[in-house]
Amino acid sequence: MEMKNKYVTINDYINGAPMESNFSICEETISLSSGEDNINVMVVKNLYISVDPYQLNRMKTHSCSQLLLPESAAILPGQAADDLGSENPGHGGMGQKLLGRRRPGNWGGVIDGSGVGRVVESAHPDFKRGDLVTGRLHWGEYTVIKGVDTISMKKLDPLGFPLSYYAGSILGSSGLAAYGGFFKVCQPKKGDKLFVSAASGSVGILVGQYAKLFGCFVVGCAGTKQKVDLLKHKLGFDDAFNYKEETDLNSTLQRYFPNGIDIYFDNVGGEMLEAAVENMNIFGRVAVCGVISEYTDKTKGAKPDMIAVIYKRIRIEGFLTVDFKDIYEEFISTTVQHLQTGKMQAIEDFSYGVESIPTALVDLFRGNNVGKKVVRIAED
Amino acid sequence: MEMKNKYVTINDYINGAPMESNFSICEETISLSSGEDNINVMVVKNLYISVDPYQLNRMKTHSCSQLLLPESAAILPGQAADDLGSENPGHGGMGQKLLGRRRPGNWGGVIDGSGVGRVVESAHPDFKRGDLVTGRLHWGEYTVIKGVDTISMKKLDPLGFPLSYYAGSILGSSGLAAYGGFFKVCQPKKGDKLFVSAASGSVGILVGQYAKLFGCFVVGCAGTKQKVDLLKHKLGFDDAFNYKEETDLNSTLQRYFPNGIDIYFDNVGGEMLEAAVENMNIFGRVAVCGVISEYTDKTKGAKPDMIAVIYKRIRIEGFLTVDFKDIYEEFISTTVQHLQTGKMQAIEDFSYGVESIPTALVDLFRGNNVGKKVVRIAED
Repeated sequence: MEMKNKYVTINDYINGAPMESNFSICEETISLSSGEDNINVMVVKNLYISVDPYQLNRMKTHSCSQLLLPESAAILPGQAADDLGSENPGHGGMGQKLLGRRRPGNWGGVIDGSGVGRVVESAHPDFKRGDLVTGRLHWGEYTVIKGVDTISMKKLDPLGFPLSYYAGSILGSSGLAAYGGFFKVCQPKKGDKLFVSAASGSVGILVGQYAKLFGCFVVGCAGTKQKVDLLKHKLGFDDAFNYKEETDLNSTLQRYFPNGIDIYFDNVGGEMLEAAVENMNIFGRVAVCGVISEYTDKTKGAKPDMIAVIYKRIRIEGFLTVDFKDIYEEFISTTVQHLQTGKMQAIEDFSYGVESIPTALVDLFRGNNVGKKVVRIAED
Repeated sequence: MEMKNKYVTINDYINGAPMESNFSICEETISLSSGEDNINVMVVKNLYISVDPYQLNRMKTHSCSQLLLPESAAILPGQAADDLGSENPGHGGMGQKLLGRRRPGNWGGVIDGSGVGRVVESAHPDFKRGDLVTGRLHWGEYTVIKGVDTISMKKLDPLGFPLSYYAGSILGSSGLAAYGGFFKVCQPKKGDKLFVSAASGSVGILVGQYAKLFGCFVVGCAGTKQKVDLLKHKLGFDDAFNYKEETDLNSTLQRYFPNGIDIYFDNVGGEMLEAAVENMNIFGRVAVCGVISEYTDKTKGAKPDMIAVIYKRIRIEGFLTVDFKDIYEEFISTTVQHLQTGKMQAIEDFSYGVESIPTALVDLFRGNNVGKKVVRIAED
């Protein structure tokens, strides 16, 4: 079998803010010969591809995989360390291998991310042509997977929901990050006052909705009036503000939380984290999902007041979505119910075609997305 | 009843490193008239007084009590917010009222801290003359307590141990901080690799011992060769180093923890916290007991790598000893047993007399103490 495959690659490591010029669109011919070599090989036609901020961390000279010491591999039998980060929805993640396939004379290889596709060829006994699947797919038209396993690739029954919901969106990794981050890491109590940053981003927009349904007071921040309006008027946040219009974040948070913050769901890091700690109540919890302000500029790192952390007994905790596998079924059933009863909404921001992927990523760092960024590669 | 009382007061707020000249020794005449006003009044002859780094935080223009929002009072029925910090052993704590009694024409008043004394006069039904007590005592020869309550002041049975052990030392607040901080906040597992800073300080020296007994690999840092030798050769730490001889703390920790750190018990904050986070294993825990490097210079605050916090799912958590009241009995019985079987040692650093208190405090910030700093005010 032979087919043309257009895909995205990067031209060199990206250590600052990403630009379209960092990427190239390449074309290759996929030829799948039959024989023993092809056992467990599968070709998937990509339908929806997730684009997430964390993916930038895998494109740096020092991939964030270096943060993980050897024992990390042990926690995820059957998964390459490479896949750990992929599971990270909103703003965390890392990859041991930057690129899946390197070829002589070509610096880059394919880049992967979570997605939804349809099997067009399979030598794996558990997948057959025509199956819908969700898992790690490449930023391209097709994904050739060698060594398919049923942990990182799953058959998909969309339960009547749009396929895009499963491509890192509300029923995919962003949903699981929001659900696990809120319920497991934040350990919420009814009436808790929750602040979420990047609140119109893929994870924040869901955290706020889960928190409202649970019984929290919820304020989010975002970077445009349009996003703030969406949070306040369409998604039921108690309040929201445009951080770009604020000059002193500490006072801003004091204004929105005169009785302090119990939970801060952090997607941005930097000054916002510092201001949140200043405004935290005793026994406050900070779930660190992402620190997008630091991804492109490490000097923007937060210097939280540790004296306040002691006196207020604040807990600051990082997490990866991969750690929530044990609550996946609970997450799906709860979220499906909320979607069916209209209590939750998926907000998605689409781009179309492989060529749009680089801009889709770049836009995340310019704050141009509203909700989950998904690229539709092909119609089903 | 009338008696002369020598006591320590401060001359003005102290916002930098403390100096002896910040303090004065005053003398007053205590007269206790009888009558209804004196119900619940008690006079205690101070025997041992604890001197702790956190007390400096109560002497600043902006007392750390301002970090606490009103609800904090609610968690400790029967205790003034003032007393919260007092319960904080090693390096945390705060006080709402800087000084207990203010008098016209005199800027300062008495300063309190945990201690052991003997009741010389009591109008409270639960305490009688001659009782040994432990609780908040003043930095002076006597403590006059109005509104005595049995939560902040307790009768003491020393169980055959030196009285100093109860004055903020191994059977007092430092012990409880180390015990609760290690077992409750760090959530240790046998074989965990633990790093403790200010390891020869009042809390660190006990954390290391608890951790060794529990089955951890323990490395501590301190600021002199004498302290390092004590940790390695007398207290059974697996290793220890003098941080003043190190130029790159990140590499230092890599050297002592080639397989990474699972638990960091932080007493110092600043660069050491940053280096510990860099060397942390996945699911690592940082118990923030104190940040002494930041008490006298806020610009030294740590900027931990939050990207590492996410990828390695690190939990950073502050605590106060006051939160461990529910495990007080367990702490005492366990520690008494370890002392009786010779498995733990109290390392105390004595000063003598009210006049020595200012230097005792100042010395803490110069690293001159080895183990728990206790001032013996009088022989029993």
